[in-house]
Order: sequence, then structure tokens, then C-alpha cells
Amino acid sequence: MPQNVGPIDSSRTPRYAGRDGFARLPRLDQVGRADIVVAGVPFDTGVSYRPGARFGPNHIREASRLLRPYNPALDVSPFELTQVADAGDIAVNPFDIAEAIETVQSAAYDLTADGTRLVTLGGDHTISLPLLRAAAERHGPVALLHFDAHLDTWDTYFGAEFTHGTPFRRAFEEGILDTEALSHVGTRGPLYGKKDLDDDHRFGFGIVTSADVYRQGVDEVVAKLRDRIGDRPLYISIDVDVMDPAHAPGTGTPEAGGVTSRELLEIIRGFVGLNLIGADVVEVAPAYDHAELTGVAASHLAYDLVSLLALRHRETSAGQPADASALSR
Amino acid sequence: MPQNVGPIDSSRTPRYAGRDGFARLPRLDQVGRADIVVAGVPFDTGVSYRPGARFGPNHIREASRLLRPYNPALDVSPFELTQVADAGDIAVNPFDIAEAIETVQSAAYDLTADGTRLVTLGGDHTISLPLLRAAAERHGPVALLHFDAHLDTWDTYFGAEFTHGTPFRRAFEEGILDTEALSHVGTRGPLYGKKDLDDDHRFGFGIVTSADVYRQGVDEVVAKLRDRIGDRPLYISIDVDVMDPAHAPGTGTPEAGGVTSRELLEIIRGFVGLNLIGADVVEVAPAYDHAELTGVAASHLAYDLVSLLALRHRETSAGQPADASALSR
Amino acid sequence: MPQNVGPIDSSRTPRYAGRDGFARLPRLDQVGRADIVVAGVPFDTGVSYRPGARFGPNHIREASRLLRPYNPALDVSPFELTQVADAGDIAVNPFDIAEAIETVQSAAYDLTADGTRLVTLGGDHTISLPLLRAAAERHGPVALLHFDAHLDTWDTYFGAEFTHGTPFRRAFEEGILDTEALSHVGTRGPLYGKKDLDDDHRFGFGIVTSADVYRQGVDEVVAKLRDRIGDRPLYISIDVDVMDPAHAPGTGTPEAGGVTSRELLEIIRGFVGLNLIGADVVEVAPAYDHAELTGVAASHLAYDLVSLLALRHRETSAGQPADASALSR
Amino acid sequence: MPQNVGPIDSSRTPRYAGRDGFARLPRLDQVGRADIVVAGVPFDTGVSYRPGARFGPNHIREASRLLRPYNPALDVSPFELTQVADAGDIAVNPFDIAEAIETVQSAAYDLTADGTRLVTLGGDHTISLPLLRAAAERHGPVALLHFDAHLDTWDTYFGAEFTHGTPFRRAFEEGILDTEALSHVGTRGPLYGKKDLDDDHRFGFGIVTSADVYRQGVDEVVAKLRDRIGDRPLYISIDVDVMDPAHAPGTGTPEAGGVTSRELLEIIRGFVGLNLIGADVVEVAPAYDHAELTGVAASHLAYDLVSLLALRHRETSAGQPADASALSR
Amino acid sequence: MPQNVGPIDSSRTPRYAGRDGFARLPRLDQVGRADIVVAGVPFDTGVSYRPGARFGPNHIREASRLLRPYNPALDVSPFELTQVADAGDIAVNPFDIAEAIETVQSAAYDLTADGTRLVTLGGDHTISLPLLRAAAERHGPVALLHFDAHLDTWDTYFGAEFTHGTPFRRAFEEGILDTEALSHVGTRGPLYGKKDLDDDHRFGFGIVTSADVYRQGVDEVVAKLRDRIGDRPLYISIDVDVMDPAHAPGTGTPEAGGVTSRELLEIIRGFVGLNLIGADVVEVAPAYDHAELTGVAASHLAYDLVSLLALRHRETSAGQPADASALSR
Amino acid sequence: MPQNVGPIDSSRTPRYAGRDGFARLPRLDQVGRADIVVAGVPFDTGVSYRPGARFGPNHIREASRLLRPYNPALDVSPFELTQVADAGDIAVNPFDIAEAIETVQSAAYDLTADGTRLVTLGGDHTISLPLLRAAAERHGPVALLHFDAHLDTWDTYFGAEFTHGTPFRRAFEEGILDTEALSHVGTRGPLYGKKDLDDDHRFGFGIVTSADVYRQGVDEVVAKLRDRIGDRPLYISIDVDVMDPAHAPGTGTPEAGGVTSRELLEIIRGFVGLNLIGADVVEVAPAYDHAELTGVAASHLAYDLVSLLALRHRETSAGQPADASALSR
Repeated sequence: MPQNVGPIDSSRTPRYAGRDGFARLPRLDQVGRADIVVAGVPFDTGVSYRPGARFGPNHIREASRLLRPYNPALDVSPFELTQVADAGDIAVNPFDIAEAIETVQSAAYDLTADGTRLVTLGGDHTISLPLLRAAAERHGPVALLHFDAHLDTWDTYFGAEFTHGTPFRRAFEEGILDTEALSHVGTRGPLYGKKDLDDDHRFGFGIVTSADVYRQGVDEVVAKLRDRIGDRPLYISIDVDVMDPAHAPGTGTPEAGGVTSRELLEIIRGFVGLNLIGADVVEVAPAYDHAELTGVAASHLAYDLVSLLALRHRETSAGQPADASALSR
Repeated sequence: MPQNVGPIDSSRTPRYAGRDGFARLPRLDQVGRADIVVAGVPFDTGVSYRPGARFGPNHIREASRLLRPYNPALDVSPFELTQVADAGDIAVNPFDIAEAIETVQSAAYDLTADGTRLVTLGGDHTISLPLLRAAAERHGPVALLHFDAHLDTWDTYFGAEFTHGTPFRRAFEEGILDTEALSHVGTRGPLYGKKDLDDDHRFGFGIVTSADVYRQGVDEVVAKLRDRIGDRPLYISIDVDVMDPAHAPGTGTPEAGGVTSRELLEIIRGFVGLNLIGADVVEVAPAYDHAELTGVAASHLAYDLVSLLALRHRETSAGQPADASALSR
Repeated sequence: MPQNVGPIDSSRTPRYAGRDGFARLPRLDQVGRADIVVAGVPFDTGVSYRPGARFGPNHIREASRLLRPYNPALDVSPFELTQVADAGDIAVNPFDIAEAIETVQSAAYDLTADGTRLVTLGGDHTISLPLLRAAAERHGPVALLHFDAHLDTWDTYFGAEFTHGTPFRRAFEEGILDTEALSHVGTRGPLYGKKDLDDDHRFGFGIVTSADVYRQGVDEVVAKLRDRIGDRPLYISIDVDVMDPAHAPGTGTPEAGGVTSRELLEIIRGFVGLNLIGADVVEVAPAYDHAELTGVAASHLAYDLVSLLALRHRETSAGQPADASALSR
Repeated sequence: MPQNVGPIDSSRTPRYAGRDGFARLPRLDQVGRADIVVAGVPFDTGVSYRPGARFGPNHIREASRLLRPYNPALDVSPFELTQVADAGDIAVNPFDIAEAIETVQSAAYDLTADGTRLVTLGGDHTISLPLLRAAAERHGPVALLHFDAHLDTWDTYFGAEFTHGTPFRRAFEEGILDTEALSHVGTRGPLYGKKDLDDDHRFGFGIVTSADVYRQGVDEVVAKLRDRIGDRPLYISIDVDVMDPAHAPGTGTPEAGGVTSRELLEIIRGFVGLNLIGADVVEVAPAYDHAELTGVAASHLAYDLVSLLALRHRETSAGQPADASALSR
Repeated sequence: MPQNVGPIDSSRTPRYAGRDGFARLPRLDQVGRADIVVAGVPFDTGVSYRPGARFGPNHIREASRLLRPYNPALDVSPFELTQVADAGDIAVNPFDIAEAIETVQSAAYDLTADGTRLVTLGGDHTISLPLLRAAAERHGPVALLHFDAHLDTWDTYFGAEFTHGTPFRRAFEEGILDTEALSHVGTRGPLYGKKDLDDDHRFGFGIVTSADVYRQGVDEVVAKLRDRIGDRPLYISIDVDVMDPAHAPGTGTPEAGGVTSRELLEIIRGFVGLNLIGADVVEVAPAYDHAELTGVAASHLAYDLVSLLALRHRETSAGQPADASALSR
Repeated sequence: MPQNVGPIDSSRTPRYAGRDGFARLPRLDQVGRADIVVAGVPFDTGVSYRPGARFGPNHIREASRLLRPYNPALDVSPFELTQVADAGDIAVNPFDIAEAIETVQSAAYDLTADGTRLVTLGGDHTISLPLLRAAAERHGPVALLHFDAHLDTWDTYFGAEFTHGTPFRRAFEEGILDTEALSHVGTRGPLYGKKDLDDDHRFGFGIVTSADVYRQGVDEVVAKLRDRIGDRPLYISIDVDVMDPAHAPGTGTPEAGGVTSRELLEIIRGFVGLNLIGADVVEVAPAYDHAELTGVAASHLAYDLVSLLALRHRETSAGQPADASALSR
């Protein structure tokens, strides 16, 4: 069995040199096939406040250059265990939300042929809808862990159905979510009205607020969430604004009182062994970041998600990875 | 009964449009009367280190545009329950501290006619003295919850009696504080000498340090403070430097080791039901802020304070609100 | 004749207090009618690179607080000579470019009833198309002075016809420009191909490059442009990226080698006496600004445009201003 | 004759090491006496808009670490020719403008005993009044070259007579200016009214606007100014906002359309040979600076002023320098 | 017994005035001798990613101006109890790592003559090796508490043995560490491979991860560490990247998920009574800091370290301090 | 003849998508051969003040995404005329200046086989020495146009011979410069002593100061320089600090009074037709940049240099380009 191609050796080529893929990994076209691909969606036309997440994918890649190949928190070398590659960015139309959604869905579907898993770097939260659609095409309705300050189950904004505040309501309506296992984590901040909560509850979501994380602690939160999810196919969507603005200033709709990056990483790591089938990290708006701290946090989150996927891959190992031709640029 | 005028509808007018009042609420002159008013005091001549809090009120307003009308943490829609309005800024003389203090006291007294409650956006901490004077004129000596890295019970600085380091000593001397119920919360950092603590203790203050908040947790801290306050008329003064500089970089005298924005918000929310009669959020210095994170935290604090006042208003509902002519600009 | 209502008196109310209109002028609803209105269009869905101009109008207003009422460069007190008011922002849909364009056109038309002149604060350059349409509805085809690093006569981008790179091609196609008097000023930087220049030339545009401004000097440039324009009804559109990024970092598509803010202001002032009928200042993206310097430059430009309109108004004085009901929010 | 003590040798001690005086020069207490002293006045209580100039002196010193000992533009090694030393900061009361003004006057007088020349680093422009008083005590009424976007001959602001907008009116009233030789250079931007110009003219000031500098060029401007000044004792006061905000963002009241740092330096250098007796560089507000660029410009200006004084010292060489005890800290 | 010379009195000389030593303390040359010295090492040639720590020492000093003389967390006035002085910066060659290491070792040895304790402000982590060498020369092999996101026990990078990633491996190899009492605290983030942990374990290090601090709490962590250290001579090395980037953005190799500044300060304070003999605070890279927050945290850490040394000094009081001639500049 | 592969089509793939080469050009390994290559040298160990230029190459590439394929200033489509490709970064050892210099020389030599021209993105100015060596290996001693605030002909710093302040003295000593045609342009700021000028003159350099550019104008400066250079093989080295810090804040040793980006670009364009054989753009330190303005200016400079090379290539067209294997990563 041929060895997987890992990242550039940083003890020979300095981390600040080159413009390689996420975590200095090879591009998908360099390795031809991969078990796990990381892809960007530079899109922010769905935002209601601060735009700029179109610059998110490359900002996360820049910050990811500090990642090293062994993940001690999960005792895994994900890039050794599996072939991980960067599929580049999915080029979407900034002037047509509907077309952009279709492009993302189609590209995500193609990239996940043959069991390849996809971790997507956003882009605003609008993109989770097409990503969930593609996931459901492959796996049927999926369990959802949604980390966010907001519910993102609103209905319309300015008459628009598809924005960064609505992906999970649309997904519910489309029947692509497993309504037995839907959770928001880190929720906080004011809403438009109590009806927001009622609707959300009706769709099947449970809520673990940021204050719950503070009071219950990470381990209790993880235990409850794992119970609920079981071995359902699981999609994890992380809006970086789930973190306190202190930890993630570079985002579009910040809310005070969020979780810390440490809590968030520890919660994610707690899902080892679950049947994770895809994930995204969204809403990184670099123009508001400072010293790359949002980018660094996002890159660590993506790295831990890749690690979870790699560990799951080892257990199941039935996956046959996609080839590079899936994503045309 | 006529309905209260609430904020601009953000699903029709984008949040980044317009220059409306705090939380996109109407101005006081638009509604004529209000149960709760939010007013700014753009003043920073009392600072001993980094100036700039004169730009604080509008910075908080800018950041407050992300607030929505329902507060799930307290299960209240404060702008429905009460008429809340933005009274604009109290125009104070930057070149004469004594005159500025008089202007603030007089305006605060006028704004709180007929039971209207006032939440003030600073400005440096000097302004809490005239705000407390006006509160005591209305309610007699008040209990005080003072959130701050510092004691602010120093005596003089460069011979000056009225600065941002002295308001609570002056208030004690003037007999406008209820010395049975005075607490500093979040205190930390070095002092000039042990005498600072002795004086402070002599004035009647109890201290809950930032480390106490860490060790005891929010709920224990709240319980103890509630016990002490009972149903006394309560004034809450929040210097944003009570938060760690990570959460509130935009302030004048930062001290490492502070509380998180989540802890602070949870503590404030813990005071639901107390006889809160007024509050301020001070020391926001925008030139040192980043990505509006200090502004966002301050706006959430003010929003929760308004929510507490609205809930109290519902219980008592005896309040007859002030009219717009109180504050002449 | 009643006196015009001017800005807040800054020797009594500090400039950093309050949230008044452009240049601390009254809002249109406060004065009911105006000879000249300043309005914002917070919109950036038409941008191809850095978004953020939706925050432009308020950023310019913030920076405009330093403006004083007498303009010595043109020896005019514009706010005395005419009633100038801030009409607030035109609330446009961020998710639908076509609807946004219609909203802007309609609002601009309404605001310019009875001879009222409109100076618009952007927003991205997409908005100049509906603004020109409204101007042409009032005045017929207009002469255009277009200050910009770019031509903005491109055809489509990602299949989209209406973006910030295409307003003047569309305007040409719609026959709303007076093709005898069209000029780009400050143009520079690479193009897609020589055809860009050929098309542009075919539409009737003359080009004064940034290098031409350097070599010929401001006075020669002004003389040539005045010759060409004569007394045609003239619209001036200023993309702040016409300035060097040193003078206007807060914009979306910066190009090195631009004109200085001094050159630009001196050129604008050179148009005194021309038949200016409307103007815009666009592409201020505050997330990329520093120390408000782009905002300050934009506010000075808008102030000089208002001054030109006021001087022209004095000469003609036939104008009957619009009333506040024109712009519903 | 003993050699003068110069700056730290930067080829042995890196420029970023240590916390030495301006230009890495010795402190006045280290050398005991000096021909020229540089002193700071960390004061900004007189500002009407953005405060922060209290941090100016040390910001300029930080930026001055890049200065080297030979000035090729004037062909002089000022630190060799004369003993130059850093007298530290004059500690002034931030809470009492009147007291602060007295402190500055007294310290400036003491520092200029025995012919020592003083270059002051501000601080806001309020301080130029006491500095001019001290200069006039030594030299009688002085000629004034005032580089600034603003006239600074306003009367009162909020009833205050002594602010950063009034020093030269007060100085005129006190008879400490030689009204035959008063010039503003770089003036621009709006005024309160035409009366501002009339008053200013009445005091004797001539105005070279920023646009004049553009049209006439540096050399013509210098020639005219030199003619006017002759060999009168000359004081130069440079408000860094004379430069365009692109060149000096770190200041309190920026105005677009300013002179470049190159023009300003070339003008200053043009005054070689004049009877310069003192100077200040004021209004550096570091919180608004970026990459130290305002600090760097200010440090170069101070360096050229020192160079002019050193060259004049060589010619006259009658000066007997002050000793370190003059400035008590 | 003569009184110790303390910091400048900030109630008379504003904190923003002057350029005094750490915490506004006297320079070592002003007091001649000291029990505890604070010295800077402006050096960053050993970094593998973001450089800039050469500006660290002065940045920490700037931020330290807010420190006051009484430390209530430890109930001590360290500058009263002992003479503390700022020895300035150790001027090291940026172009020759080997020479720089020798210079630091020699200077540290000289500064710690006669029992004087040294707290060093970095500079990158390379400098801990020579500092440990000097400590071991004085005390024999020392116990080490190493606060850092990283292990810093790597072997070589680009063939270089002496970098900021290798000091503790080199120290182990040189036999200058007491291998019974070596601990990393705050460790987190990916590694090159599991071998990194194995090597580290072999050298004798125990690891308290950042997640351990979260789960166990500060007091349990302190108790375990104290047990291990006993009364061994102890050196504490704090890389500010042990804190989450939210609390310390101004550093070279940030990792998400770190400890808070409050946790870190509380842990440090927990070591009161231990036989601390020296310490450093390193890796402050000001170009990436914001609002001085990394500087403020670093200055508080250094202040608490000085406080621990002062308390220990009181107990032992045998120390005879070094004189100023030890460090030649 | 096969067509050259140009940049990504930005009307289909947004400019903010992907991580392609300079100007969105293909990588050298994608096209196999190129007439002109752009390569980065991420190195800053030779700097004496602010480090960070190691991040320069990718910063310039990021900013270069705004470049379009047709250069109207020179009427050329360089990427059509010639195959231009990005050769990535030359991985150099940050801990060993001597080794780094050798690596750069060797890589530059290899990349310029068969007449391929190389434009290098720095990195600090140290790298111009090995680049000149490689150029001289190919062409013999070369004429040099050196744009810089500084002379960079100093001798040693801290005993080190090879730093960013010495490349041209070393190059002179090595005989690789054509001493008949050496020019500094944009020089300004203080020097260590008059000897600096004498040495520099002795090496054969002429100096066009920044003030000369102001007084003589761009066209006269170009004419004189062209006269001197004739048809000698010419190397152009641009230190971005030749621009005023307003135009290039992101650099290590800023000096006030520099040329504008417009002047610099116009001068470079003036060299059309000269026998340019190689060039570099160095000293971009992104940590000090704002809104990418230094990056944008540097990318435009590199683009104009490529355009000059492409135009010359058309004339001579004898060049046989290098293949991708030359640069191993």
C-alpha cells in the first residue's frame, strides 16, 4: 500500500514559505485521490451584517501553516492514517445566491464520491444548506451538531429565503435533517421573539446555550450530545461566532458571552468515534480578525474535524476516495 | 393603551443602515415619553491614562445595532413591555470637570422624572458620581454594585478630587450610598498600598475579586450579592475594564486576569427581581477597541440592564415616564 | 425669509457628541424641506473584491463631524446659503441587486423633486446607475465627470450585468449620458485588454490618467475638463479609489499610483460655476480604513460638492426644495 | 574642549534595545549641560476632538530610534556640533489646564537658561502658548512660523480660553508675537466663518495654504517666508496635522488635502541660517497612528529642527547651555 | 537601613510621562545595587515563524506603567520589601545566535552576583538556555516550571541546534536541569509526532495541558506542581503563548485553546514560598499585539514573579544584591 | 507556436478564490517552462530593525490578485507576449545567513537558465547580493538602479558583513557591478556620517534623492538615468521603503519624505527599452502593512517590471526559458 502524501516538512521548508494547501498538505490534483478533502467556499453574499467571509478560506489556510502532523489530544496522525488533500476553492457566483447554492451542492456531491469525506471552509453560513443537501444525497437525512451564537433557523430576511440566517430551517423543510438528533451548541444573544425558539423547537432542535457550557462543563455537554446522536450519520457545522468575540473577532455578527476556543475544541474532540460524515467551519471574516487569531482557531477546529474523520476512517476503512477531477476549477 | 414604539425592523431595513438610537430604538424626542431612557455622556477629562471614552456612547450605539428585541436569557421583550428610548448625549464641557459633573447630575435628574429609569453610556467613570447624586435625589442613599478592575475609591490624583478613580469615595463622603450594601465585583490588579483596601473597607465595600468569580462561580457570587442587597434601591455601575482585556481591549486602564463577558452577563442577569433604579456602562475607549468587541460587550450589558429594568417595571408599573423636553440639547 | 437651519454649534456641543446628520446638519424630517440633501446608500452586493461599502454612509457621517460651516477654498458658507439636510439612508435589499437598483432610482427621483439637489454617499459603484437614471429623468442625458482608478465600463462579471464595474456602460446603453462630455479622471492600473479602452472610447469617454494629473497639474486638467463640459447638466461620481491607497485605504479595489486628496479636492473646487446637478461619493469600505482617513477625505469631497451646489443654487435660485416625506424609511 | 556625548552606537547596540532619549541621545542628567535640549510635554486636556497626544512624546522618541547622526540634507552632524540631550518629560497636571500652562512655561524658561535652545515634543497645541511665553521672556516678541491645517487663532470653545485651538490668539493678545512676521503654512479645511480669517489677518498672520504649497512649490514658499522673517528671533510650531492624514494619521483633528512629509521637511530645511530660537512638534496622537508613520515623520521634523539650531549655534556659538537641574522630575 | 527606591509617584507624575524602568522603577545605575533586577533581552533570531520579539522588552515596559506598588493578591509591596531595579537591555547580536547566547549567559551571571535575582523580559525562547546556564552556575541544576503552548524540547530546525524550539532539550543535555522536577504547563496543539512526547517524557518532563487546567482547576494544578518541586531551586519560564491568543495575540506561534490570563496569574501566585531563583517572560511580539493587551498580561506576570521573589527574599534575606556595573551597555 | 498560459479568468473565478501564483498566474511546474519567472525569497534574518519580510512574498502575491492582464501604461499584455510563471518560494535557512545567501544565488542561477528572466519578491535586502551574483554569472557586471531610502553600502553591523544594509558594498567589492552605471534613487534620511557618502561615491554610485525627484520631476530623472545606463545589462532593485511610509507602511526601516507610489511607478515605466535582465522588490514587512497598501504597491511594481521584461523579450526574443525542474522545493 502506498504511503499517504503528508504536509511539507517544516524543519526544511519554513512554514512561512510557499502557498501550499490547508496544513501545508498537497493539493488534490497533486495526489489524484484522497480519503478526506478540505475545500473552500469563498462566498459571503448571504450575510446580513458585516461581509468579508469570501476571504475566509485562504485566511484559514494561511493560519493553518502552524499545524503539525500529530494530534496529541486525539493521539492520531491524521495525515498518515489517511490521504488528506486540499481541493482548493469552489468558485461560486457572488451575484447570484441561487446559482451559488447549486454550484456548492454539486461540487460537494462530486468531491464526496467513493466515500471521501469533506471538510469545508467558509464562506458564510448560507453554504451549509447545499453542503447538507449533498451529504443527504450520500447518506440520507443526517444528524446535525450546530455550533453557533445564533439559531440560523430564521425564515426570510428582506424577502430572501436563502441567507446565512436560514440554512437549517430550509434543511428541515427539505427533509434532509434527522430530526431526532439536532442540536445547537453555544447559542446566546437576543432573538426577534419567543416564536424563534418555538419554531426552532418544532423543527426538533435541542439547545445547549453558551451559559450551559459554562455551568455544566464540557464533559457533561459532550456526554448528553453523544447520547442523542448515537451512530447516526453526523454533520457538524461550526460558525466561528459560537466563540466569544475575544476568541473570534473576525466574524460578521459577533455576540458577547460566547464559549472559549478551549471549550469548543474540547467539545469537538469529545465526539471521537461518532459517525461523522462531513463538516464545515464558516463565517471567518478576515477584515475583522486580528493577529490571525480567528484564523488560527478555525484552522485548529478544521484540523480536529479532520482528525475525527481520520479516526473513523481507520475503524471503517471501507471508503474509496474521490479523485481530483471531481472539482473543476 | 397605546403600544410602545420599538426598534426599526431589521428584516426590512438592514442593520447597517440609518443612525437610530441605542438598539435601533426611537429617540426620546420621537416618542415624547419613555419608561426607560438610554443616554450617553461623552466625557473623558477625568481619566488618568488612556483617554478616548468621549467616543464611547456612539461606539456602543454602533455596536448595539446587532441587538434584537427578545432577550431569551431573561425571557423578556423589554421594548414591548416598556417604552425604551434613546435620549441622545448629554453635552458636557470637556474643559471643566466641575461644570461637567453638574451638567450630568442635572440632566440625569431631569431624565428620571416620573419614575423613568436611566441607563447611561459613558464616558469615563467620573460621571458615576453625578449619576449617583441624581439617583439619591430621587431614591435616597442607594445600594451599589460596582463592576470594575479597580476600586475607584481613591482620594485625589494630581490634587484633583473628581476623577475617574474617585467617584465612590466622593459618593461615600456625600452620604449618597447605602453603606450596608456596597460591593465591588471583579476587582484585581495592584494597588498603591494596603491602605487602599483599608479605606475601601471602612466605606463599607465588600470585594468579590475576579479570582473569586473564577473559584466560586457565577451562581454563588450572585446569591451572596443578592442576599446583601435585598430590596434596597440598587444602582449598578459597570466599568468595562472589569472584563479581561481580551474581552474589552477598548478601555483606558486595562488589567490582566479579568472576568469573561459570559461571566459578567450571567452575573448581571442574576439580579432579576432586584430593585434596580439606574445603571451605567462606562470606560469604553473606542480607539483601543478591535472589531467592535468592547462595543458589542458593552451593548449587551446595557441591553441586559434595560431588560432588568423592564421586568421590574412590569412588577411595579407605578412609573410615570419622563418626557422628551427633559433633555435639552 | 426664514433662516436655514445649520449644523449643531460645536463650540457648545462637542463634535464627538450626538449622532446628527452629515456635517452635524439637521435630518430632512427635522427641517421638512431642503435645497440640497445628502443621503446614504448602504449597499455593497455589487462588489467584485473586498465588500464592506454598506458601512460607508455612516462612516462618512462620523468623519464629517469635523467639518465646519465656512468653506474658505470656495469662499462660501453653504449651509447658510441653502438649506442642506441629511435624508438618512435609502434602505435597499442586500440580496437582490435588481430590486436595490430600483429602490435607489425611485428614492433619488423623489428626493430631487422641486429642484432639490442630491449628494449620495455610497455604497458601491453599482448605485451610480440608478442615480444617473434619476438624474436623467429630471434633466435629460447628463455630462459625467467620473473620478476613479477604474473605467467601470466593463460588460459583465460572472454573467451579472449590474455590478460596481459596469454602471457607466449600462448608462451609455440606456442613453442617459451626454456622450459629448464624458470623462474619467484618475484612471490607472491594469485592464483586461486593450478592448476595454476601445469600448470606453466608443462610448465617448475621455481619459485623464493619474499620471496626467501629475504631469499637467490640477489647473490644466480643470481647464480642459471645463471646456468640454460647458454648461451641460453635470453629474460627478467619485469613487474614492481614485485617490492613492495611501489617502484612501478604506476601499475595495485599491490601485497604487493614485492622485492625492489635495489634487482631488483642488480639481473638484475647480468646477465652481458649472451646472452641477447631482453627485455621489462611493466605495468607502470602513473595515479597511485607518484612523478614519478615507472617511475624512470622503466627507471633505462631499462637503465641496455641496458647496458647489450651493454656489450654483445662489446663482439660479429657482430651485424649490423637496420635502421630507419624499424618503420614507 | 571636551567632545559632545552623542547617541548610542547602533552598530553595536541594536536600535530596538534600550530606552534612551530622543534619537538615542543621552538624558540631560547624564551630560549635565546641553546646547540644545529636547523635552516632552505629555498633555492633551486642551483637545476638542480625539485625545491621546499625552502619549505623543514617547511615541516620537520610539520612532526616533531610526535617526542617524549625520544629516545629509543640511550637511551637518548636529550631535557632534553641539551637545544635544533629552530632558525627559515636563510632568503637567492633566486635570487643570491653567496649572499645566504655568508648569510648561516655567520649565521651558528654566531649560533655556544660558542660551540653551529647546525643541518640545507635544502634547496638544495648547502648550505652544506657554512655550512662546518662555521664548518671549528670553528674546522678546518672536516671529512665528506655524505649520498646521488650522489657524489656532480661535477665541473660546465651551467658554474655555486656553485650548489647542486658541494659543496664537492668546499669544497675540499678550503681545509676545512679532506681528510683522507671523505665518500659517499648510492651512486648509473649513472654518466657522469668514470672521475667522478676518480676525487672523488682523493679528498679522499671512497664510500659505496647502494648495499654495502645491501650486508654488517648496522653494518659492520658502523664499517668501524667509523674506518676511529676516533675522528676527523665530519660533517654529509644527502641528503634525499640517501633513495630509495619509502622512500623519496619528493626530486629533485630521483634514484631507494636506502637504506631504517631503514638502514639509524640505520647507523646514529651507530655513537654514534663520535666527531660530525654539520650536515644537505637537499633536501626535499615537492611538491613531499606524506602523509609527506619524511618529517617524515627527521625529524627522524634530531632527531637522535640531539640525537648524545646531547650524545656527555654530555661527553664533555664544550660547551657554543649561544644566540638568533645571528640569526637576 | 536605607529605604529602597521605589517607582515614580503616579499621583504627581502621570503614568504616561517619562521613560522609566519596568513598573516605573529606577534604573539599576540610579540605585547602584538591587535585590531583584528586571532586564530585557531584545532578540528574536531564534524564531521559526513570526519574528518581532526583539521589540518585546520595551513593549512590556510600556505596558508596565500601569502597575502599582502594592500586590493585594499576595499581600506584598515588593518594591518596599526589596530594592528592585531595571537593568536595561542586554545588547545581543541579532546576526549570530551563538554569540547572542554567550552574551546573555555572561550578563545574566554577572547580574545575579551576591544573590540578586533576575527576571528577564524576552525576546524569543532561545534565551532561556543561557539564562538557565547562568542560573545553574549559581545554584546547580534547577527545577523548571515551563509555561508554554509548546514543549520546546525539539532537536533541530533547519539544522540549527539553538532556536526558540529547543532550549529545554539543550538544557537537559547539558545537565543543568533537575530532572526530578520538570513540568510543562498549558501545553496544547499538534506536534510533529508521538516521538516528541516520548523524548520529552524521557527528559523527565511532566505535562499539565491547557485542557487539564480547565478540568482540574487552578488550585489542584498548583498543589500537584508544588508537591513535585518541593524546595528545589526553581526557575520559571513563561512563554506568553501559553495563554490563549485572545489573551496574548502579540506572539509568534499562537495556538488556539490556551489558558486565560486569570488562570495563569493565579497559578503563578500559587507558588508563593517556593524557592524561586529566577524567571523569564518571553515571546512577546508587539507587532501582533493589540491595545497592549499582551504587554499588559506580560507585565502583570513579571510583577507577580518579582513579588514571589520579594517574599522569598524576606524569608531568607541573605541575599546581597549586585551592583550596577555588572551590566555594561 | 503554443499560446502562453495566462492568469485565471477573474470574470469566472472570483479574485478572492484560490491560491494561485503571482497575478493569478500558473505555477512554473504547471507550465514547465517560462520566459519570465517570479519567485519569492521569504527571508529576513538580515534586518537591523523591524523584522517580518519573511512574510513578504506571499503578501505581495495576495495583493497581486487585483492585477489584470493588460498594462495600459506600457501598452502591453505581458502574459500574452511571454510565458510568465510563479516559481514559488526559494526555501532558505532563517538561522544561517551565509547558507541562505548561497541557496538564493544557486536557485537564481538555475532559474535563469536559457535566458529566462527573474523577478524576485523579498525578503530583506540581503538577498540582492546573491541575486546580483547570479545575474553577473549570466551577464557579467551589471548596471544597477537601486530604489531605496538608504544607500545600503554600509560595511558591517554588529560585525556582520552580510545584512540588509550592505549588499551593494559587497557587490562592489566582488566586482559584479558595472561601476559606470550605478544609481540610488529616492535616497533620503540621516546617515552615520559624511563618510557614508564618500564611500558610496567612491564605489561609483550617483544619487537622485527623494527631494530631487520632487524638484526635477519624473521625466527629467528618467532621462538622466537612461543616459547613464545606455544598453548595459541592467538590474533594478526596489526597496519599498523608497516610497514614503504613507505609501508603504509595511516595511522595516521607514523614513519620512519619500517618493509617492505614482512617481515610482512612472519612473519604472520610463525604463522601457532598456536592457533589463533582472529585478527584485524587497523589504515588504506585512505585519506593519495596512489594508494591503504596501502589498498592492509592491505587486504593481513587480507587474511593471515584468512588463518591461516582456517588452524587451519581444524585441530580442532569443531567450530560451528555464524549465520547472530548476527550482526544487
